Amino acid sequence: MSKTKMRPLTVGLLGTGVIGGGWAARFILNGVDVRLYGRSSSAVERVQEKLASARRAYRRLTQVPLPVEGALTVVNSIPDAVRGVELVQESVSERLEVKQQLLAAASRAAAPETLICSSTSGLRPSLLQAGVDYPERLLVAHPFNPVYLLPLVELCAGQSTAPESLEQAAEIFRSVGMHPLVVRKEVDGFIANRLQEAMWREALWLVRDDVATVEEVDDAVRYSFGLRRAIVGPFRIGGGGNAMRQFMQKWGPELTSPWTKLTDFPEYTDTFLDKLVEQSDARADNLTAPEFEQKRDDCLIAVLRGLRAERYGAGETLARWEQGLRERVAALLTNSSSPLQMPTIEMPSDSIDVNGQIKESRIIELFGVATDALLHLIGVEGEYLSKSGRYKTIETHVSHLRALQAGDRVQIHTQVLGVDDQRLHLFHVLAREGDEEPATTGEQMLLHVRAGNDCSEIVQGNVRERLLELARLHTNLPSPEHVGARVWAKI
Amino acid sequence: MSKTKMRPLTVGLLGTGVIGGGWAARFILNGVDVRLYGRSSSAVERVQEKLASARRAYRRLTQVPLPVEGALTVVNSIPDAVRGVELVQESVSERLEVKQQLLAAASRAAAPETLICSSTSGLRPSLLQAGVDYPERLLVAHPFNPVYLLPLVELCAGQSTAPESLEQAAEIFRSVGMHPLVVRKEVDGFIANRLQEAMWREALWLVRDDVATVEEVDDAVRYSFGLRRAIVGPFRIGGGGNAMRQFMQKWGPELTSPWTKLTDFPEYTDTFLDKLVEQSDARADNLTAPEFEQKRDDCLIAVLRGLRAERYGAGETLARWEQGLRERVAALLTNSSSPLQMPTIEMPSDSIDVNGQIKESRIIELFGVATDALLHLIGVEGEYLSKSGRYKTIETHVSHLRALQAGDRVQIHTQVLGVDDQRLHLFHVLAREGDEEPATTGEQMLLHVRAGNDCSEIVQGNVRERLLELARLHTNLPSPEHVGARVWAKI
Repeated sequence: MSKTKMRPLTVGLLGTGVIGGGWAARFILNGVDVRLYGRSSSAVERVQEKLASARRAYRRLTQVPLPVEGALTVVNSIPDAVRGVELVQESVSERLEVKQQLLAAASRAAAPETLICSSTSGLRPSLLQAGVDYPERLLVAHPFNPVYLLPLVELCAGQSTAPESLEQAAEIFRSVGMHPLVVRKEVDGFIANRLQEAMWREALWLVRDDVATVEEVDDAVRYSFGLRRAIVGPFRIGGGGNAMRQFMQKWGPELTSPWTKLTDFPEYTDTFLDKLVEQSDARADNLTAPEFEQKRDDCLIAVLRGLRAERYGAGETLARWEQGLRERVAALLTNSSSPLQMPTIEMPSDSIDVNGQIKESRIIELFGVATDALLHLIGVEGEYLSKSGRYKTIETHVSHLRALQAGDRVQIHTQVLGVDDQRLHLFHVLAREGDEEPATTGEQMLLHVRAGNDCSEIVQGNVRERLLELARLHTNLPSPEHVGARVWAKI
Repeated sequence: MSKTKMRPLTVGLLGTGVIGGGWAARFILNGVDVRLYGRSSSAVERVQEKLASARRAYRRLTQVPLPVEGALTVVNSIPDAVRGVELVQESVSERLEVKQQLLAAASRAAAPETLICSSTSGLRPSLLQAGVDYPERLLVAHPFNPVYLLPLVELCAGQSTAPESLEQAAEIFRSVGMHPLVVRKEVDGFIANRLQEAMWREALWLVRDDVATVEEVDDAVRYSFGLRRAIVGPFRIGGGGNAMRQFMQKWGPELTSPWTKLTDFPEYTDTFLDKLVEQSDARADNLTAPEFEQKRDDCLIAVLRGLRAERYGAGETLARWEQGLRERVAALLTNSSSPLQMPTIEMPSDSIDVNGQIKESRIIELFGVATDALLHLIGVEGEYLSKSGRYKTIETHVSHLRALQAGDRVQIHTQVLGVDDQRLHLFHVLAREGDEEPATTGEQMLLHVRAGNDCSEIVQGNVRERLLELARLHTNLPSPEHVGARVWAKI
């Protein structure tokens, strides 16, 4: 593969459906100009909508600024779409004759060195090469919806495809953030769709036979092995070939059990088992079983935490469980004439970055848990939040005084430094269990604002009384050492 | 279902394998005492290891303090494991006679009201009820590995199971953070494993026929539809029954294509199509197609961002793409006698919390991107990081001056306020594009420390020269308004 990272300047897209629109979005947001051939103006509008969704998605996906967008030019003919471009990507409907005609026409108008790819979900590229000029530059490049987010693109060569065409295509797709995978044997449905299709057929049987509804089938997937599938495929057992051999010996007999309606399975010979074992040993990352299990767990946690923020699927289950924990913590807190003490926790290893530095954003989250528990204690929760008001942070000062290590047992003490009708002044001290000296301190000023908007508003009713009572107990305590610190302004 | 949240006090576990150990970890970390029957001391050691992994996992999963751990008691007999517990969970090997004997013995020793569940991956509960005393309290409760992280537990009744037993079991599993799903018809393999098994058989064919290696099959899954499966199951098309009808009409014909070796599929009648459509309309969450697409995108982004932090699978692809973007941004920055200006970005909607407040941890991340770009500009990157040193943040002051909305176009300007041999004093101003006044400011002190440890160290070589040059240009600029602010200490 060539060493220079080739990013195309312009691509020609044929087809304006979900896949064509997804390609347009991925290329444009990566700074590539797009020439789009669509037959109706409503189709072009749908592409614009897809582009708007993708813009929103990319803003959430990364906080790094994106390149200047490529230009979108809608053209009225196939030749206009394919002239002067580095790559033509066809994404019209899955009808062989339609694709064949379109690809043949595109190949006549495009320069001989222009790559031509088809997004077909399952048609073999050799069939698509019939009638194509310079068929050595035609291949399948099969993406997944939404194209602007899912990285895989399966590359499949037909009988006439030149190996360099595969390499050039892989490089282009890599340059726009994708993961190209070359399919080593031409086969209907390539790899991923064959696997999806098998599961899909079983899913249809389950509904047909009233074992489950469509929603139950979906839930059975997304609350269980579906979470693993974002991380590892079906062959990833943990450990190398030996683990695979044990796994196959344990579960091989189940192939004869009536566990699926799809009973056909490959003959279970020693040669086949050896192949599975050898390939498992030859993986690019050869993690040991315990290393793999830890990586798998870490990734599952990352997925669950991500979904928790969205309160969706397994993330909702996690959020509900955590809410129970949080209420338990709040119930343990009591007004007293000492700072509120959160239960001991251990610093998780993912709160430390690659350089061994504690992540400031995780510390801020920890202080947030303590603040939430305090607000819960004074009654800022449930109906009060939805009808009356809430506290928002307007100022924060964090001092990192002592290094923390993953696994350190730490406690947070939170003291109310002062209150008035609108403001709440807090001081968090995070210290290793048993340490006199704090590891990190956080001083925060919160402002009480009206529910539903951002206007300051005086604190009300019971909350006010409970807050004043807590403040009365706390403000007689000695002021902690780092209160009122400022970042050293003179060096 | 009863309204009180029933958390068992003690459970009895039979079996000490991967699943038994996973159950032990989930219960103990949720504050439930466990009586564990295992036949060898090495097996009990493996359970302890599993528990250690789960402890580590839960620390990363949540920052909310966990309850006091339940006690683990290892016992030497089945009666000792099942007496005085609320729930017995059997997780021994998948051999019908072994399970039958064990469950029968457990049922004789346990109180009649004790629930008895089997973790079997596929055996029908009616078969397990043979020989069991009070078989109405026996059911299948099938979890997924790792049991302490994956929320699904499939509950399946046998012929003699009482409906109340299902309800009580569901409540117990919910109380330890799981998502129970009742299987409405007794069938081998239940729901999830039937789906997995179909895909597994196709995966075996792909390797057997040399279409792909085991690693390629895994990659085809985890870089594509596997990412969706953590979020949605195969039937979730987006939109209700009408969308499902269109989908089936479009893709139905593919069922006759040779897209899988597993060619058996249910007859495609109008009645069956109507059932699919009705069930799709009856989903608990009836998001419209655009609402669903946005939710799906948001969840995919959450999953990708989570995996990015782990630099695994699709997250590695994302990290590599972002690294390219970051280098492009750094290349655009130049030394000049004005603050460094980051390209404009839009505030993503997930930087705003449920109350409409900007998340402070996301602001800290944004300032981090600006700091990284500055450090990259002066040469703190690559070899310097691994061999010489790095800058760590020791103090941060954030002032939230103006409310920000999702979608606001913002810019960050970063100014060097001062440097010495070890320290770097920065000031970030985040403002809406075109606004004179900042929305948020961040003042930070960074300390130069040696690569690989936390000891302060003077800055070296080229980096030192480039830093001094940048500081010379910046320190002649006027000092920004909020430099040196402290959180208001007196109310």
